Amino acid sequence: MNNQQKSHFCKLSIIFIIFFSYNLTTQDYTIKLLEKYSPFADKIINYTLKDSSSFEKLAFMCDAFGHRLSGSDSLNKAIIWLEQEMKKAGLENVHLENVMVPHWVRGNEFCKLIKPYQRHLSFISLGGSIKTPKEGITAPVLVVKSFEDLEKQKNNVQGKIVLFNYDYKNYGQAVQYRFHGAEYAAKYGAIASLIRSATPNGMNNPHTGSMGYNDSIPKIPHGALTVEDAALIERIQKRGQTPVITLYMESDTLPDKLSYNLIGELKGSEAPDDIVVIGGHSDSWDVGSGAHDDASGCIGTLQAVRILKELGLRPKRTIRVVAWVNEENGMRGAWAYAKAHQNEKHVLAFEWDSGVFPPSEIRVSPDTLVHKLKIFEPLLSKIDSIKIIKGGFGVDIIPLTQAGVPTMSLNTEDHGQYMWYHHSPSDTPDKINPYEFNKCIATIALIIFIYADL
Amino acid sequence: MNNQQKSHFCKLSIIFIIFFSYNLTTQDYTIKLLEKYSPFADKIINYTLKDSSSFEKLAFMCDAFGHRLSGSDSLNKAIIWLEQEMKKAGLENVHLENVMVPHWVRGNEFCKLIKPYQRHLSFISLGGSIKTPKEGITAPVLVVKSFEDLEKQKNNVQGKIVLFNYDYKNYGQAVQYRFHGAEYAAKYGAIASLIRSATPNGMNNPHTGSMGYNDSIPKIPHGALTVEDAALIERIQKRGQTPVITLYMESDTLPDKLSYNLIGELKGSEAPDDIVVIGGHSDSWDVGSGAHDDASGCIGTLQAVRILKELGLRPKRTIRVVAWVNEENGMRGAWAYAKAHQNEKHVLAFEWDSGVFPPSEIRVSPDTLVHKLKIFEPLLSKIDSIKIIKGGFGVDIIPLTQAGVPTMSLNTEDHGQYMWYHHSPSDTPDKINPYEFNKCIATIALIIFIYADL
Repeated sequence: MNNQQKSHFCKLSIIFIIFFSYNLTTQDYTIKLLEKYSPFADKIINYTLKDSSSFEKLAFMCDAFGHRLSGSDSLNKAIIWLEQEMKKAGLENVHLENVMVPHWVRGNEFCKLIKPYQRHLSFISLGGSIKTPKEGITAPVLVVKSFEDLEKQKNNVQGKIVLFNYDYKNYGQAVQYRFHGAEYAAKYGAIASLIRSATPNGMNNPHTGSMGYNDSIPKIPHGALTVEDAALIERIQKRGQTPVITLYMESDTLPDKLSYNLIGELKGSEAPDDIVVIGGHSDSWDVGSGAHDDASGCIGTLQAVRILKELGLRPKRTIRVVAWVNEENGMRGAWAYAKAHQNEKHVLAFEWDSGVFPPSEIRVSPDTLVHKLKIFEPLLSKIDSIKIIKGGFGVDIIPLTQAGVPTMSLNTEDHGQYMWYHHSPSDTPDKINPYEFNKCIATIALIIFIYADL
Repeated sequence: MNNQQKSHFCKLSIIFIIFFSYNLTTQDYTIKLLEKYSPFADKIINYTLKDSSSFEKLAFMCDAFGHRLSGSDSLNKAIIWLEQEMKKAGLENVHLENVMVPHWVRGNEFCKLIKPYQRHLSFISLGGSIKTPKEGITAPVLVVKSFEDLEKQKNNVQGKIVLFNYDYKNYGQAVQYRFHGAEYAAKYGAIASLIRSATPNGMNNPHTGSMGYNDSIPKIPHGALTVEDAALIERIQKRGQTPVITLYMESDTLPDKLSYNLIGELKGSEAPDDIVVIGGHSDSWDVGSGAHDDASGCIGTLQAVRILKELGLRPKRTIRVVAWVNEENGMRGAWAYAKAHQNEKHVLAFEWDSGVFPPSEIRVSPDTLVHKLKIFEPLLSKIDSIKIIKGGFGVDIIPLTQAGVPTMSLNTEDHGQYMWYHHSPSDTPDKINPYEFNKCIATIALIIFIYADL
């Protein structure tokens, strides 16, 4: 925590001390705060839940610009459109900040089973992978279930394409294979590597995402098969046959390109230099149209502030909306923002990058903040059964977290469904329920307003 | 009901009369039958639920031959393999019967949005559709929600591509647009037609299926968009813009090809000329590998009889397993079988073409059979909570139904999920739970054995 954050915390603490110094009991204090913010809550909730513009804007962003991979023209066009929407919403200080972003491109790609029979395989390169030679790579496949299984079979890896067909448990586990699979396989001599797509529910959607290389280990092409086709290859191996596949990828990393973080503000009435920064990320993967991930976060946080402005609710502190760029494959926007604004007084950093489902939890850090905000649960319960709990995470707010800024994020009750769509062709607006989207926006508008106004 | 069926019914009735003539109460009669068949039920269930070969065979059929559209080499290879499996299972009178089947081919196809912006659209031709001209069809789209909506807008249809983006209620409703959409749209001057895929859960899978033309109305190309892309086109129209698309299809109907119905039997011990015919269909659509639809029905019914044979359970009447060909787009196998075997005494026709989920109901016709078989529910309950109810349907047994043969079918508790995969790339073996498959097979083996032995 730096001095600025310490200062904000001192202020929050002073508020509490003042209440107690007037010999108010905790219960009295809670009642006072709830009485104060209850009319604001009603206003925000009633207005937001009847609003139809949020889903319309999200769908337009997805439909008109399509996918928004860093370095693409469609991303920059979407950001420029979003800038106009911020201006139309009446936000102040709306502007773009230059960010040089990675420019990885997919190109043509395919994967096919050659032996024991010929089959098209549904395949997608993972973001950042190198290409194959022009003639592709044709090689036998070795299916492994885990890194441990790979280790056991390390003498059988040379010259093979390793397929990690792990039993899916959760995204965190799956990401290990997506991010590190090529490195682990290449260590033992694999010439390419594949993973089962990182999803509990394949439905023939290949899921992409970021991957990494280790400079001390040869770089090999790395991609994902659908759940269906990974299972097919494993069944063939289990029958005692050796599957042979041909893999062709043109994916490449071109020179960095200019893109932008987008910023707009609702200036605070009493402490405009105290900044509550909220946002989502403007970029998506180059499949689907990034409706959940993360047009919802960009549009949702913008709409939350637009609604506060339309209701004439200007809190004491400034609420700044940021559409960070390049969350998916580089975090360049996050680091650029943190650097450009390092001398400002951030009193909170909030990112919404968890998809649109019924809001269930507001997660906050540090832990002391949980107790301070928990008293507002009765107001949030007017929207849904929402708890204030420990946590608070977003990739784009990692740099601010590291600088000691308190964090907040929204969790939703997705029953695992977010990962059905995540980084796949099926992340499209039809997967978003407009009413649930409004409930999330109302939640954010309310808790952020209270936080910025305390 | 013809004379043969009448004869079987008389026999069933005589069994009942005999019991009653011995002054047994209904309860006594039920207990006697349950006592008689309970040991058989235990044998069948214990053996089947521990069996691992059923799923392995299903997966092999899907993996090794792929999709099995009528007229394809892969279908005929799969049928020849299935014939060998029948022989290995020890069935008697295993043989193929020639059937000339339709030979519709897909060829290359694509659909893209041209205005208001360019997008690839996920598209699939519907089975039986004519092709587009070589240059494709580029035209504005009119989105309608129903046939009634089309009727209202009939003066606006000329020269358009009509998209039926109905609100999905059930498969029966969806099939109306799939089968008759081209005819209805062409009636008012449309030059092509599209439907939202017939599924409650799109996940970017286009779903194909059969369609029809009316010879008195111009034939126009007819295909399906994914749920996602149909929704996209409708959103554009709702914004007051006119979507324009280019549609390209090479689909064509070639001369009929030779294929086969496959037949094998477990001959009855006392009345071998009384035939209980059971089966599924060997063909599938040319996407996915037809795991649920209907490798499960072919393999499942074969396995049911294989298990009876391995357990030494030979019923009084003959059980005949048939893999009917061309259920999906012609019913040629069904009609050929009914014609070739019209002089035989069919005492029951059973088809399993409803996918693999926990077995829930045995549906039978005529209604009098419900009461006669309902007493065996306690034995079926050892497998799952299975009811005997009115019904009994299968496309391939329609000709036998029309000839008056009693019918039976298996319903499963799919919670709508079967239609997620149906006729789409995601109908693959990984969607089948081997234990649920075994439960269905045990159900079929048990009820068919009892029926054939009564």
